[in-house]
Amino acid sequence: MTLNVKTPHSSETLENERTKATFSIEEMDRFINGDEFVALREKLLAIMRSEPDIFDQKSNYFMARTEKMEKALKQEKRAIELFREGRLKFEEIPMLFNMLDWHSPYHFARGIPGAIEVQGTKEQAEVFAKPVRNLRALGCYAQTEMGHGSNVQGIETTATFIEETDEFEINSPTLTSTKWWIGSLGVVANFAFVMAQLIIKGKRLGAFPIIVPIRSTEDHQPLPGITVGDIGPKMGFPTMDNGFLRFDKVRVPRFNLLQRFINVSRNGTVTVPSDVNPKIVYSALVSARAHLINDMGIQLAKGVTVATRYTAIRRQFGEPGKFESPVLDYDIVQYRLIPLIAKAYATIGMNHEFDRKYKLTMEDVKRDDFTTLQEMHAITCSLKKWTSDTTVYGIDTCRHLCGGHGYSIFSGLNEFFSSTYQNIIWEGDNFVLAKQTASYLVKSAFAISRKEKADSNDSINIVRKFMNIDPRIALEKLYSWSEMSAEQIANNESVLLDMLGIRLWHLVHKLVVKVYRDGQKWDESSVASQGIATAHSEYIVCLYFGRHINQLPQNSNLRPILLQLLRVTAISGLLRNTGDLFMLPKKAKITENLITGLETEYMKAIKSVRGQAVPLVDALRIPDEKLNSSLGKYDGNVYEDYMKRALDEPLNRKGSGEEIRKRFYKNYIERTLKDGLDQKSSKL
Amino acid sequence: MTLNVKTPHSSETLENERTKATFSIEEMDRFINGDEFVALREKLLAIMRSEPDIFDQKSNYFMARTEKMEKALKQEKRAIELFREGRLKFEEIPMLFNMLDWHSPYHFARGIPGAIEVQGTKEQAEVFAKPVRNLRALGCYAQTEMGHGSNVQGIETTATFIEETDEFEINSPTLTSTKWWIGSLGVVANFAFVMAQLIIKGKRLGAFPIIVPIRSTEDHQPLPGITVGDIGPKMGFPTMDNGFLRFDKVRVPRFNLLQRFINVSRNGTVTVPSDVNPKIVYSALVSARAHLINDMGIQLAKGVTVATRYTAIRRQFGEPGKFESPVLDYDIVQYRLIPLIAKAYATIGMNHEFDRKYKLTMEDVKRDDFTTLQEMHAITCSLKKWTSDTTVYGIDTCRHLCGGHGYSIFSGLNEFFSSTYQNIIWEGDNFVLAKQTASYLVKSAFAISRKEKADSNDSINIVRKFMNIDPRIALEKLYSWSEMSAEQIANNESVLLDMLGIRLWHLVHKLVVKVYRDGQKWDESSVASQGIATAHSEYIVCLYFGRHINQLPQNSNLRPILLQLLRVTAISGLLRNTGDLFMLPKKAKITENLITGLETEYMKAIKSVRGQAVPLVDALRIPDEKLNSSLGKYDGNVYEDYMKRALDEPLNRKGSGEEIRKRFYKNYIERTLKDGLDQKSSKL
Repeated sequence: MTLNVKTPHSSETLENERTKATFSIEEMDRFINGDEFVALREKLLAIMRSEPDIFDQKSNYFMARTEKMEKALKQEKRAIELFREGRLKFEEIPMLFNMLDWHSPYHFARGIPGAIEVQGTKEQAEVFAKPVRNLRALGCYAQTEMGHGSNVQGIETTATFIEETDEFEINSPTLTSTKWWIGSLGVVANFAFVMAQLIIKGKRLGAFPIIVPIRSTEDHQPLPGITVGDIGPKMGFPTMDNGFLRFDKVRVPRFNLLQRFINVSRNGTVTVPSDVNPKIVYSALVSARAHLINDMGIQLAKGVTVATRYTAIRRQFGEPGKFESPVLDYDIVQYRLIPLIAKAYATIGMNHEFDRKYKLTMEDVKRDDFTTLQEMHAITCSLKKWTSDTTVYGIDTCRHLCGGHGYSIFSGLNEFFSSTYQNIIWEGDNFVLAKQTASYLVKSAFAISRKEKADSNDSINIVRKFMNIDPRIALEKLYSWSEMSAEQIANNESVLLDMLGIRLWHLVHKLVVKVYRDGQKWDESSVASQGIATAHSEYIVCLYFGRHINQLPQNSNLRPILLQLLRVTAISGLLRNTGDLFMLPKKAKITENLITGLETEYMKAIKSVRGQAVPLVDALRIPDEKLNSSLGKYDGNVYEDYMKRALDEPLNRKGSGEEIRKRFYKNYIERTLKDGLDQKSSKL
Repeated sequence: MTLNVKTPHSSETLENERTKATFSIEEMDRFINGDEFVALREKLLAIMRSEPDIFDQKSNYFMARTEKMEKALKQEKRAIELFREGRLKFEEIPMLFNMLDWHSPYHFARGIPGAIEVQGTKEQAEVFAKPVRNLRALGCYAQTEMGHGSNVQGIETTATFIEETDEFEINSPTLTSTKWWIGSLGVVANFAFVMAQLIIKGKRLGAFPIIVPIRSTEDHQPLPGITVGDIGPKMGFPTMDNGFLRFDKVRVPRFNLLQRFINVSRNGTVTVPSDVNPKIVYSALVSARAHLINDMGIQLAKGVTVATRYTAIRRQFGEPGKFESPVLDYDIVQYRLIPLIAKAYATIGMNHEFDRKYKLTMEDVKRDDFTTLQEMHAITCSLKKWTSDTTVYGIDTCRHLCGGHGYSIFSGLNEFFSSTYQNIIWEGDNFVLAKQTASYLVKSAFAISRKEKADSNDSINIVRKFMNIDPRIALEKLYSWSEMSAEQIANNESVLLDMLGIRLWHLVHKLVVKVYRDGQKWDESSVASQGIATAHSEYIVCLYFGRHINQLPQNSNLRPILLQLLRVTAISGLLRNTGDLFMLPKKAKITENLITGLETEYMKAIKSVRGQAVPLVDALRIPDEKLNSSLGKYDGNVYEDYMKRALDEPLNRKGSGEEIRKRFYKNYIERTLKDGLDQKSSKL
């Protein structure tokens, strides 16, 4: 069947787009994704492609949740075989599932050894963590309860020391104390890392972790006193067995209380070891968020890959006598799509610098040096918020961009959205995290204003730059754009970074005044904190992305387009709410003309990227297997694939389809159309 | 089991909130929803409650798509029985499904008679439309194709006149010409209202509608030459059988071409009847959008009902020695939730005025008077965009507000979101519609500036007010806020409306200058059009909502809270992008102080509504049956309901659950944990 009589075939359209590339796809892939990532990706793809019976994901869209979970378990079983054969490392298994674009029910179990090693003694790590590293036991992290999430100290589960038997008694006193949302719990785990209120000799000591066996290692049945199950279907994340867990006075040995930060002796004497700093626990939160940030760019890359390829293919309207125009040629499509391509690159790109700094901090922490941990905490809070917001709503915009077909499951975009969405909520709700970043910046800025000691780092130095200004510094140095045209500003990434920086400083400054001068309660700073955290991220993302680009040789063919993506990202951040710019100090010379000019330059910058859109998403190298999308197919055969998938719908499928349609007709449709008519005609 | 040892029971919490009401819930329900709606709602609820076997929706969350469709068909069959018994009117059946909160696969079939009556002759209406009104035949509206949506003139399906046999031959020449997305087609319809390129004597005449039988009235099998099926799963809308349809040279009599706007004689002579105005077809688009706008407020009401009740119940953190605070007491929760309650009220409230004007326009059109149709078209375009954007992303915010539990299917919010989302895309993509509204406003403003004739109505008069200003009018009359404090402005709904109006005028003015003075192509106005359409909606919504409130007697106890909701809606619109305000003419006296002041007043206004939040959502009267949400239960027993639903998950359910879990353990979990170990131990 001809695809379309009047226009080139959709695969030919993509091929034409690809001829426009001004850079090497291979080089870009290695530069943006990193050599290590590229090598692992290719290794995993080879495994997936060699065993399609286990790893092909095409039929998933028709599966009920139980079937999906079973398929993921089957894949996990195979992954563990490969692990035992030495072909996959423990740390590589999550990346395999990332390529399959869903999670194994074992996913959270794999995070438990790390948590035990941080919170437990060496002996405890040997007993509880090692079997999980060998995948001979499966744990789950049971902290959140039905009634408590953000407020960990409010959890209700108790662990009471029973001196007589040298045990702890774990109990769920209320309905809301039921552990809830716990990943890898509903079906999989045989023990739980339980956060519980420690009660010793009638005294509540706060929430501490304790290891509790929950299912028999013989037959996987719940142990006495344990009630456990799955919490039911969610918006996304179907293969994860998020579970609930209740304890009816369950006893475990005293040894099971993780004792790195607290010791309970045989007679119930509580001591706190002097050789460990509790900030180490804090670093676990930082790690969890760093991993999340790491993944977000890849997730957004999926969305922009589908939307770019499909809007390049999709033709609608156009000039008379010509082929209809690809919708990617329209302003309103470019305006929404190109900044997202830029932000996918910025997120993945900045991540190299972020990860480098994160690893340095983790090394510092291991040496008991906590100097850099505070900024890393502030950065992970705001970047976790920004990357998840940008990715989730970026994917959503990609769905709009695909028009009606974006609403079809076969676009892939609905799965991307639903299974990325939880990143806004978990590992610290984004709206709560914003306050953490703002608090760090506001306190530091106040200290600087009082000439007190304050950190010196990327986040604080930009704030410091605009405070206690040395009168000998010329304003044009401070406000580097004050003598420039909009065009000059828009083409100068260093000046754009200055603008992002001063906007951040000004928002921080306004909150400092409210809190320290006007006496506003910190609790009332939540709304202002959102804007500060976002402005902080926009600054840091551009700063780090720029540093990564600067690794390139000056003559690299990757440089011009990457700098353009950096500029688009920066201007997008500046124009997000232009009111923030108008409120800058007079010396910043923000005028209506300048803003209107920047808006014009923004559109020009966007348009300049149009020709590179398809090569850019190609270079992100998200394989078709991970996209699982008719609209995003690399070869451009989107409509053929779309039709093929539709024919596989259970209502159409040979066999099942005929049976269902016959039943629907006989039982409902025929009766609604004909009932009463027979009676009537029989009366005639 | 105790719910929570330390705090009042969640149902008690809601009861306490309800004692705070400053108005009568009954009166508010009748005023905001309207007496007619309230009466129908109660009638339908009584039917649903008396037949729970058919109408109870609780178990839907565990159903596969085919099961859901079967259940909806069963409900439709019962509805038609009630229709034949005279207990339900044809027009009331969609409202029954609205209360069930999903659609019948017959939904779009019910819209076909209207389309035929507009486009066909009286005789054709008798033959094709009447059987559908009696639910003895089922049609579908087959316009959209795989390759063409917005551009109707680009559709590829052909209807070629065959003079020899006095027939039309319907054909799908390409893959992309396949009719796609057609509601009520995949399983249900036995004929199609097909938009096809009319070809007569080798000449293409454009797209016209033609009636084509597609399934046998005997056994519902596809007729010769017809390929038909379901397009597969979507993001939401699971009970709708959106289908595809292909024609392989299918012949139909000449009579089947709907001939109100075109006549084709026996020998293929084409004539256009002189007594009809083609703008009538245009009015069909207006009607479809008006119905959509009508529904959006109710959809948003579902979201805010769940989020308000649950954030009133959910406690987290708080002052020492007190109960933990309901999260609804926190600024950042109020800031996101209260404006949405206000907008739900504004949308439902303004709808009374909107509907009144819409009906007047439809009466005008019937009398061949098209004067008011243009503004109605502009209004339905921008309101369709604003109400669907506000509702879909409002529901999304409600999901955030419920924290982790918002991500559970049992919150209801995921279904609300997924099955409302399509309203952004269909009946005209929101981004395309914005241009329609902007075009009307820009053209009218230009005409006014040239002292040419222009419409006089709500949309244009506010633009006119600021153009060709009579120098004798004092500025303080024009810029009514110029001598006022932020507090005075924020408490004066008439001044707020003026500000919304001048902002609209200024955005329109800027585009007029670009297009008419600077020669910018209209195609490049898409981005600016988005802001204009939104500003236009914000103005119209507040204007109409205000008019509805003014129907109330001055001493009504509903007035104060409704005016406060109007003010919150208006300020929310003004502060959406404060840069637009800063760019107003100097005479408007927009200063940083004023904006900061308005931000403070906005938060004060939001806080003043906090106490009424639960009574306000109660008065919207969305029944528990429609919410189908653990978190939004009227009686407040949210955690009990949540646990009960989780236990019904297939993985937990008695019988099925044990079987599945045993299989998972034996086939996967046990083998991953123990494989190799046995071998090893046998070697020892």
